[in-house]
Amino acid sequence: MSSIKDVAILAGVAVGTVSRVINKSGAVKPATRRKVEEAIQELNYVPNEIARNFKMRKSKMVALMLPSIWHPFFSELAYYIEDELDLEGYKLMLCNSGGKPEKELYYLEMLQQNKVAGIVGITYNDIENNVSNDIPIVSIDRHFNKKITCVTSDNYEGGRLALRELVKAGARKPAFIGSVTSVYSETMNRREGFIQEAKTMGVEYVVYEKPDPVEDDDAYFDELLKEHHDVDGVFAITDIFAAKYIERAGRQGIRVPEDVKVIGYDGIQDHPYFHPLLSTIRQPVEEMARMTIRLLYEKIEGKDLEQQVYRLPVTFRQGETT
Amino acid sequence: MSSIKDVAILAGVAVGTVSRVINKSGAVKPATRRKVEEAIQELNYVPNEIARNFKMRKSKMVALMLPSIWHPFFSELAYYIEDELDLEGYKLMLCNSGGKPEKELYYLEMLQQNKVAGIVGITYNDIENNVSNDIPIVSIDRHFNKKITCVTSDNYEGGRLALRELVKAGARKPAFIGSVTSVYSETMNRREGFIQEAKTMGVEYVVYEKPDPVEDDDAYFDELLKEHHDVDGVFAITDIFAAKYIERAGRQGIRVPEDVKVIGYDGIQDHPYFHPLLSTIRQPVEEMARMTIRLLYEKIEGKDLEQQVYRLPVTFRQGETT
Repeated sequence: MSSIKDVAILAGVAVGTVSRVINKSGAVKPATRRKVEEAIQELNYVPNEIARNFKMRKSKMVALMLPSIWHPFFSELAYYIEDELDLEGYKLMLCNSGGKPEKELYYLEMLQQNKVAGIVGITYNDIENNVSNDIPIVSIDRHFNKKITCVTSDNYEGGRLALRELVKAGARKPAFIGSVTSVYSETMNRREGFIQEAKTMGVEYVVYEKPDPVEDDDAYFDELLKEHHDVDGVFAITDIFAAKYIERAGRQGIRVPEDVKVIGYDGIQDHPYFHPLLSTIRQPVEEMARMTIRLLYEKIEGKDLEQQVYRLPVTFRQGETT
Repeated sequence: MSSIKDVAILAGVAVGTVSRVINKSGAVKPATRRKVEEAIQELNYVPNEIARNFKMRKSKMVALMLPSIWHPFFSELAYYIEDELDLEGYKLMLCNSGGKPEKELYYLEMLQQNKVAGIVGITYNDIENNVSNDIPIVSIDRHFNKKITCVTSDNYEGGRLALRELVKAGARKPAFIGSVTSVYSETMNRREGFIQEAKTMGVEYVVYEKPDPVEDDDAYFDELLKEHHDVDGVFAITDIFAAKYIERAGRQGIRVPEDVKVIGYDGIQDHPYFHPLLSTIRQPVEEMARMTIRLLYEKIEGKDLEQQVYRLPVTFRQGETT
């Protein structure tokens, strides 16, 4: 690890000058300051306490990139992320990327310019070429191929759990329904767990997927209901998918749970006022949010993390649809 | 309005020096830079183009303070606010104040230190002593006594509309139910409009309110249902209040809309999957968000606004509860 001396040598200045730059105290010529700051960056000179404070002073801001804050799952996540950041005096910058890669790249640039200290990213775009493993970024759900730390619910176990609960509720031909992104995402494990458990239990099953995002709900559900009319259980990749299925199936006289048992994923309904209350695999949103921020701090401080993917346990929440 | 020359004179430097400070180009001694920056602040030296860019560079960040991003109304608002800010390259800093005045005061301090360019505030706390009329802050819903610009839906007309729709649906003794904050809030006009319209129409009505926040839902609704069992229409101050009422009334065998017609306020249900779909006074959330940001820009640029309160029209959205 580099010392303040290394920085002084590389910049060709005295140690006292480096210290003045770090503390922003006393007169330093702009050209000298620039040389020192470049040396600090080049050596990735990291804290003793003074340097840490300096670094902190540069940015106490964390960017949260998510497809849309308007989605109840993401707004719950953002709520706890902001709460956890606030404990350490960090501020949250919010970015609805809306799936726009250029907006996400812009925030990565801000990170490289030290305008934000770190990024929490929920992205389904393939921006990984612009992401290196040593920058403070923690992903949620999305698992990058490179060494980006990822916090996620245990999607695989969630899929297994959903299959078991559908069978327990009486389903004999359950289907997994969802959409599939072009790049690898942790959410794909929901399907994998579902399939694996069905095979283990010897249950006949269906997988119905279309490319993400699904542009035409009518076409999606019409085809599903037409081609798989014998399905009597549905595990939907999200609660919203589950709710849409129930509404479309209802139009054709299919009753839930009498004719088809339905289980969603997320647990977006946080009060019991609107029906149906979905049976669902509940993500531990608060724990995911807080763990994400604590891991991000470690990365900001330059520490190596033990794991690349942190999977938190899910639970089944019984609603009115199984 | 001050010129670059005024700044140079006050700082005791050449105009070229001021320009170099503004453009962050060329060598300027830290002490000189400080003098120039102080002079700029003291004179409130505002753009020509160079100065504007300089000012922008200081902060392209707007803070959004709201009680909780987890609430669907606020997350929809935040979605459009971020979208509008993004058009001009501004970033959104998000703060869940959770009704904590100290957190709100902290953001006001950030504004005074130029760490944020402006604040959009949804606050129900009485922080107005710390708010002066010349700082770039725009309030939503909450109407400060001082000259803080406020963007709100037309709560008074919303209250009148709700009363008329309840009567039209057959209610003969409608009630307004809500909670009441200790400081003045625009939302109080929902009640006022309701009362005024009832008087105009000669309709018997009930007002049922408790101090905000309502800590004990059970006590709140038990008392309401016990003391006002003859009520056959409810206008609730928010959709959530309406949903809670429906759930509690249902436990006592009261059917909605057969026995009691119910209208909420906000329009938080943005898809038709969960029931009951509330009949509601829909706030023009997107328009409110975009207007708020455009007004904030004018304040950031030091312009005087024509109005203090901007009220946007609401509409009645028919659901399943009237």
